[in-house]
This record gives sequence, C-alpha cells and structure tokens, in this order.
Amino acid sequence: MRSFDSIPVPPTSTDPASFGFSFCEGGVCAAAGVRAAGVHAGFRRNPHRKDLALVTTDEPCVCAATFTKNRFCAAPVQVSRARAAAGHARAIVLNSGIANASTGERGLRSALAAGDLVARELGCSADDVLVASTGIIGRQLPLSSYEEGIPAVVRALDSTAAAAHDAAEAVMTTDTVAKEVSLAGPVACGSDAAPVRVRVGGFVKGSGMISPDMATMLCVLATDAPLTLAAARAALSAAVGGTFNKVTVDSDTSTNDSCFLLATGAAGGEPIAEGSPGFGAMASAIRCACENLARKIAADGEGATKLVTVDVVGAATEQDADAVARAIANSPLVKTAIFGHDVNWGRVAGAAGKCGVAFDQRDVDIDLLGVPVLRGGLPVPVDDDEMRRRFEEPEVGIAVSLGTGDASARIWTCDLTHDYVTINGEYRT
Amino acid sequence: MRSFDSIPVPPTSTDPASFGFSFCEGGVCAAAGVRAAGVHAGFRRNPHRKDLALVTTDEPCVCAATFTKNRFCAAPVQVSRARAAAGHARAIVLNSGIANASTGERGLRSALAAGDLVARELGCSADDVLVASTGIIGRQLPLSSYEEGIPAVVRALDSTAAAAHDAAEAVMTTDTVAKEVSLAGPVACGSDAAPVRVRVGGFVKGSGMISPDMATMLCVLATDAPLTLAAARAALSAAVGGTFNKVTVDSDTSTNDSCFLLATGAAGGEPIAEGSPGFGAMASAIRCACENLARKIAADGEGATKLVTVDVVGAATEQDADAVARAIANSPLVKTAIFGHDVNWGRVAGAAGKCGVAFDQRDVDIDLLGVPVLRGGLPVPVDDDEMRRRFEEPEVGIAVSLGTGDASARIWTCDLTHDYVTINGEYRT
Repeated sequence: MRSFDSIPVPPTSTDPASFGFSFCEGGVCAAAGVRAAGVHAGFRRNPHRKDLALVTTDEPCVCAATFTKNRFCAAPVQVSRARAAAGHARAIVLNSGIANASTGERGLRSALAAGDLVARELGCSADDVLVASTGIIGRQLPLSSYEEGIPAVVRALDSTAAAAHDAAEAVMTTDTVAKEVSLAGPVACGSDAAPVRVRVGGFVKGSGMISPDMATMLCVLATDAPLTLAAARAALSAAVGGTFNKVTVDSDTSTNDSCFLLATGAAGGEPIAEGSPGFGAMASAIRCACENLARKIAADGEGATKLVTVDVVGAATEQDADAVARAIANSPLVKTAIFGHDVNWGRVAGAAGKCGVAFDQRDVDIDLLGVPVLRGGLPVPVDDDEMRRRFEEPEVGIAVSLGTGDASARIWTCDLTHDYVTINGEYRT
Repeated sequence: MRSFDSIPVPPTSTDPASFGFSFCEGGVCAAAGVRAAGVHAGFRRNPHRKDLALVTTDEPCVCAATFTKNRFCAAPVQVSRARAAAGHARAIVLNSGIANASTGERGLRSALAAGDLVARELGCSADDVLVASTGIIGRQLPLSSYEEGIPAVVRALDSTAAAAHDAAEAVMTTDTVAKEVSLAGPVACGSDAAPVRVRVGGFVKGSGMISPDMATMLCVLATDAPLTLAAARAALSAAVGGTFNKVTVDSDTSTNDSCFLLATGAAGGEPIAEGSPGFGAMASAIRCACENLARKIAADGEGATKLVTVDVVGAATEQDADAVARAIANSPLVKTAIFGHDVNWGRVAGAAGKCGVAFDQRDVDIDLLGVPVLRGGLPVPVDDDEMRRRFEEPEVGIAVSLGTGDASARIWTCDLTHDYVTINGEYRT
C-alpha cells in the first residue's frame, strides 16, 4: 500500500544548537584577530555606494580557499588561487563594480598591483594578500581607485560588527541585502584541555550568475579557532560542496567565484587537526555558516520572491539525486510556475524525467509545499485553497522520491520572475 | 597576427535550390496521397479553437518516427513508439489541450481508444493509427471528445492547403503562429529512369518545454517520394539530429515530443533506398523541411522577440562544440541580455567557460551580430550605434571560436523576456 504521507526530507536548516553553538553578532569580525572595512573607492560611479572591502588578520594565518572552475576565470582568481596554495594569508581585498575578467595581462597586473598596495599599507608580504573582484566582465580596473581607496580602507579597518557590515555591503552587486553570518561555541582544543570558545563569521555576495562549482561569487569566512591548514581546507571543502555548490539561481557559473576561510587561532588552545576531538564541531560550524549564507544567496536571487528547496530522495546514487534536483531547480518552467503560485507538478515531473537519470515513472512520488501531489506516477487531488495559503509563505519546498534507491540530494534555488528579466535585460555591459 | 574578420560560420539557412528543390504551397498535404483536417472537439473549452488534428494517407505507407527520451513519457508516446516500430501507418491523430502524460493505465486506454475510433472510421487496422497529444500534464482526456471529434475530423479530411493549415492550427498550444513547410523537386528514382517530381511537407508545434532530444513536441512530415522504410528512418533520424534536437527554448524537454514522417510513394517511381541515386536529394529535402520548422519553433519560443543562432567553431570535438553552444543558448543571462539589446559578450564568455569543456581563454574569439567583440580573450571596441542598429533585426547571431580544433555545432534558441515569465507564470495546471 502506497503511503500518502509527506516524503521524509532532512530538516530545512542546520540548527547550531545541534553541535553546541549559537548564532552571535559580529559578521566576519566575530572571529578574534580579524578586522574589516568597506569604503567607496570609485570602481562605481555612485559615490554613496561602497565598492572596496578589506578583511585582515593581525598576523599571517591559516587560509583555505576554493575557486570557480569556469575556464574564463578572472585575473584575481588566477592571482589568489596561486597565493592561496601556500596556505597562509593576512588580507583579502575585494572590489565590486568591475570583475577584472577577460582583461588579459593588464588585468593580471591590476590584481597584482592591488595586492602590492595592500601589502605596503599593512607592512606584510604581497604573497599574503588575496584579491577578489565582482562586477562587469571585460572592463579594466582603474588603478587610481586602488591607489586612493586602499589607504582609506586600511584606515577604516576595525573589529566591530559595523565594520564587518561595511565590508559585506562593499561587495554587493545586484544583491538587495548584505549577507552575513556569525556563530560561536565551545570546541575541544587538545584531548584533555577545557574546551575553548571559538567564533566563525563571514559574509557572501551573490545574486545572479549563480550555479554549480562555487556558487558564491565572493565569500569571506573567518574563525579564531586554531585550525591547522589541512583541517581548514578539509572543513571548507566539505562545507562548500554541500552548501554553496548546491545553490543555483540561473545555472550560470561566475568567472569570479571565490570562497576564503581565514583561521587566526586567536581564540587560543591547541591546534585542531582533522580527526582531533574538536574537528567535528568546527566542521559543523563552518558548514552551518556556509549553509546559512547559501540559503541567503538563493533567497536573494535576482528578482526572487521565494527561496526554493528541492529535495530528491530514493535515488540510486547521489549523482542521480543531484542531477534530478538540479534539473528541477534550473527549469525555467518550474521556476515561473512557483512565481505564479501554480501547483504545476507536471513541470517538476517533466524536469525530473529529462536529465538522463533512469527511473520508472510509476514509482515516482512528488510533494509540493509539503503536500503529496503525485503518488506512484499519478496525480493526487489537492485542496486549492490550502495550496494558495501555503504559497504565501516565503519558502517553497519541492520533494521528489524516485523509488530507485536510498541516495538523496538537496539544491536551493529561487523562482524566475519579471524582475529577473528586468534586472538582466537592463544591467549594462 | 590575429584576424579581426568575422568568424566563418555556415550559411544561416539551407537553400533548397542547392539540391534542386524549391519551396511550394500545401503544408503536409503538399505530398500526394495525404489528407489532413483540424477541428474543435472539446479538449479545449474555447469552441473557436481547433484541438483535434488528423493526417491520413490513402493507403498504409512507410512511416518513420522519433520520440522524446523523457522518462515521464506520455501515454500516446508509449502507444505510438510501439506501433511505429512496425514501420507502416495510415493515420496520425493529434490533440492539443491535454498531454495525456502522468495518466497511468487509464491514459494508455484513452490513447488506444483514440486509435480504435480512427481505425473504425477509416476502415483500417488500429495498428496503423499513431497517436500524439500536447497540453497540460496529469489530466485525463475526455473520451467523449474523441467519440464526437473523430467522426467530424474524418469528414473534414481534405488534400488542400487549407486542410493542412487546419491540422497545423489544431496542435498549437502557446504557439502564436501555425508552423508549416513544403518543398518540391526532382529526385532520381532508379538509376536510369527520368527523375520524378516529389514533395515534402509538414507542420510542427512547439513553443515552450523545448530542449534536446526531440525538441519538436509534435511534428508531422509527409512525402510522396517512394522511400523505403530504412531510407525514411535514416533520413528522418539524420534530419532530426541536426535540426529539432538543436533547438532549445528553455532547456525543458517535453514528455510528449514526437516526430513522424509518412512516405506515401504516390509520386511514383522506383523505391528510393539508402545509397540509391535519389537518396541524397531526399535526405537534403527532409533536413531542409526540419530545419525550416526548427527555426520557426525557436523564433516562436514563448515570449520570444528574437531568433538566436549560436555557432561554436574551432572546437576539439563535435560534443565539445555542442556543449558550449547549448550552455550559451540556455544561459538566462545571455538570453536576457539579447532581450535588452545589450552587447554583453561577457555573459557569452561566462557561459562558454562553465560547461566543463577545456580551452584556453586566450585563444577564444567571439562575434555578436556578426561583429568581432572578443579576440584572443580580450574585448574589441565596438560601435554602439552600429550594434543598436543590428539589434533591431529579428535574428541574432552569436559565434564563438574556441581555438582547440576543427569541430563545430549550431544551436537555435530565442531570448528570455517578460512575456516568457508571464506566459509560464500564468499558464494554469
């Protein structure tokens, strides 16, 4: 007998209480030893809009990073990828307005110059300065904006929540809100010592050109936990794979996606390596921060009115589940139906069936907004008034059970609206 | 020295004169021995809208067909796929309004009943009646509409251009125009006989849910050439692969895509087999008809204001070229930029770089509207007024040269507009 209960899916968001943490204030500056600032430097014409951000640590510290796989990767990605390979950093300088992508040798020189200017102001090695840019592709960065802006942003550096917020604002492009997170909790540092209270904070920007393989565009995370480089890399890589890389706004992958994690160790305690007692909680905290920011990206997708979570369960493999969930999340027909508050499970079924994953339609169940709409490949009558009520909520859940195995995947996206077309039909090169 | 000439791409449309044919009147009825009709049968509420089409041949004849690969394939696809395997048919009955997809056993019985009713009216075997449906997924077909509509559509059968047009109209859903083609020319039938004049005609419907692996939704082609079954299948398969399967409106693949080719042989002459003297011209004519209809689908994509042709050349393999061309054609950012008349080659570059195909950005050239905009990975200044003028044309060409080999691919699509969102946000389940 087929069950008409809702399809069981994982809880909607990670509760930091589950690993002993709680959300706190401070953004990227929540982590001890981290300062930030955001100023207007002239990359944008509007003098009221911040466009240059800087995040620094008191000393060179552990740094893990992941980058876009786009072949047209931007100049700052090329510079930062090479420098992050060394595993340490003291500063990340980010600008919005101009992406410094498709800019050739001159673009590379601009990215290097930005690092040099920051290094001179901070008195550190240029190798410890990472660079990131977001904005219009194919335009050269004005060096004068770096030359005037970098001394100003260094002067503005502070460890306050307001300074962290300024940095988060300075990287916004078509984002409508600054996206920050911070959480704190106890972590075992060394097997017999008392737990140390650590913090993880960060910000992200991203609203369009958001898809697989680093969906972030730009993200800076910092923790004061004494993570080893290998532990920082492992925790960041696992977190990004399950969060930012599971967001898709429009299936378009940016040329500039970069995600950085600084670990200052300022909280004190013995180093936390992979497999040490504190690593599990740290990995959970970093993943929680990433998931929180990833959901904020999807919710603030260009023109979005809804945050959409697509769960695929009962798949033969994780790859199958991911492929079906992505096909649904990227389907313009599904996304416009959600915009129209339309219980159009037929488009969900069509998207699931198109992506080359094998299943028998007679085994497929679909829930929309938590309500069974398809069981065993056949429609289930729904209460239209109840569905209309549920569509008023800011979040939409789609769950699909394929009936071919036990694997599952979750993808976050948003609806496709008139405002997406307006924003992207009018955003000028 | 890098050339700033336009990237060389194949001519924009196949000229039938190149294989001795010319366009003619008649639609699907251009082929001798073919009759058609379209009536209102009640699948749609609007009594002024035709919703039932029938195409018949005077005798059972050679029939080739291709179908969607979507796992949620509709009941009529399951019935017609099995019947078309026999290679002969006398009738194709098509309805719009209801897709008869996700309808289980009852849907299969409806599709079989439609075939039985047509067979009884025509006095032929039900095995020679193919069935196709398009419209809303998950709703059962009212059998009363078949019971009343099929005798009426059989009575209306005629071999005129008007009857062919009625059939083309009866399968329209969100299509804004009926899409027909017909061409005629001489073909060698037998190696020493005088050439026989043959005709190829057909119609197609398709506007949304249009993507790889049978992009047509529904297409009926007919020729009076004496093609053998193997020749008909070879010609149709090659034509569909290079035309309908190269169209993408929204990356969504329908549950109902079907393409049929009837070959009556009524033009006379010896059978045309693969490799016989007349086969080349026939294959060209069938491909020309498909390409003509494929371009009409893209131009009439939901909400479209532009027909967009994406050419990728200089790729290492055809698969690479196809993947890059599809990534560009499916990119919402590229499609909205075209809607906005924005020379945003950065989005073209970003889409090309995201799809996993290896190339060096320093080798990439891009033309937009026939004008070089990127050479060796770097922007080329353009005359904005000239670009604005070119954007007024109904067609937009995007050409990308990857610099990794000699393979190429072409994909047709359209822009992404407010009307797409309106149509699909309001089209009700």
